[in-house]
Amino acid sequence: MERMIIDMDEVMADTMGGMIKWYRAQGYKGEIDYSKMPGGSWGKGFPEEHQAMVRAHLFDPGFFRDLPVMKDCVEVMEQLNKKYNVFIVSAAMEFPNSLKDKLDWLNEHFPFLKWQQLVFCGSKSIVHGDYMIDDLVRNFNGFEGKKYLFSGYHNSEITGYDRLNSWEDAAKIFL
Amino acid sequence: MERMIIDMDEVMADTMGGMIKWYRAQGYKGEIDYSKMPGGSWGKGFPEEHQAMVRAHLFDPGFFRDLPVMKDCVEVMEQLNKKYNVFIVSAAMEFPNSLKDKLDWLNEHFPFLKWQQLVFCGSKSIVHGDYMIDDLVRNFNGFEGKKYLFSGYHNSEITGYDRLNSWEDAAKIFL
Repeated sequence: MERMIIDMDEVMADTMGGMIKWYRAQGYKGEIDYSKMPGGSWGKGFPEEHQAMVRAHLFDPGFFRDLPVMKDCVEVMEQLNKKYNVFIVSAAMEFPNSLKDKLDWLNEHFPFLKWQQLVFCGSKSIVHGDYMIDDLVRNFNGFEGKKYLFSGYHNSEITGYDRLNSWEDAAKIFL
Repeated sequence: MERMIIDMDEVMADTMGGMIKWYRAQGYKGEIDYSKMPGGSWGKGFPEEHQAMVRAHLFDPGFFRDLPVMKDCVEVMEQLNKKYNVFIVSAAMEFPNSLKDKLDWLNEHFPFLKWQQLVFCGSKSIVHGDYMIDDLVRNFNGFEGKKYLFSGYHNSEITGYDRLNSWEDAAKIFL
């Protein structure tokens, strides 16, 4: 079986969507400017005076526990998991409180994935495999397999990579 | 720089020692039989009627937070970290409550290691590098670099591997 390495945030989990929901729930009504996200992170789309607060919330316990799942991800992942040696690899180590939240989130929404298939790391240069699906090109550094950039506002201007625009796309290519 | 992959439990952390200390602190006076550990796990050295309890304690929050550090590990690791591309790779995913504890433990005792160098996984088949130091031969499966078995009671009868009997040994070989 070929090994497929799949990212969590902005690929399986709608991290930006979860943050916007939280931001609104705090009562903030600032405009989210999607045109400011490319070339950096989606955090740049929040009003400038709230970006530090948004960034800080990534470190709060619970944030990663309640993120929405990306459309079609569960169904496609379940099929991929039968055909490929799937590993979920998240650069979670920067956010110490996210570790347990991410594990619980995976167990809730993807109960067919076993703990043997999960990896929380810092640098993804440590993992190897045949395919990598990620929204951040820096995670492709040194990866020798085939790379697929999962599309989001923050990477929309990047060229030179094969893309997955959705999990439906992933199903067409890999299943 | 060559990449070195180093295990935590029974290599950096004296997990068995921490468990024995906890066991005694509960008031149990059963004999620890080191002759029963080889070929399996150190858990087999505890009185049979307490093995399930000992196993269960691995899942408790806090257990991995307070483990003793192996002798000379901090000093040697600090030097290795200057000469090698060190990654700490722990198969921690089986124990969900250990994740934050292990991260806090590493930050306390090994503050010179950055979060980019840390990996919590299930199967170590996902990582690649030039050297792997581990106490469990199953973690060497599929690893293409050079393997060093870190000695403990539980692996004392295994033959056919280069061994590190201590961190002093590691210093002699790698520094």
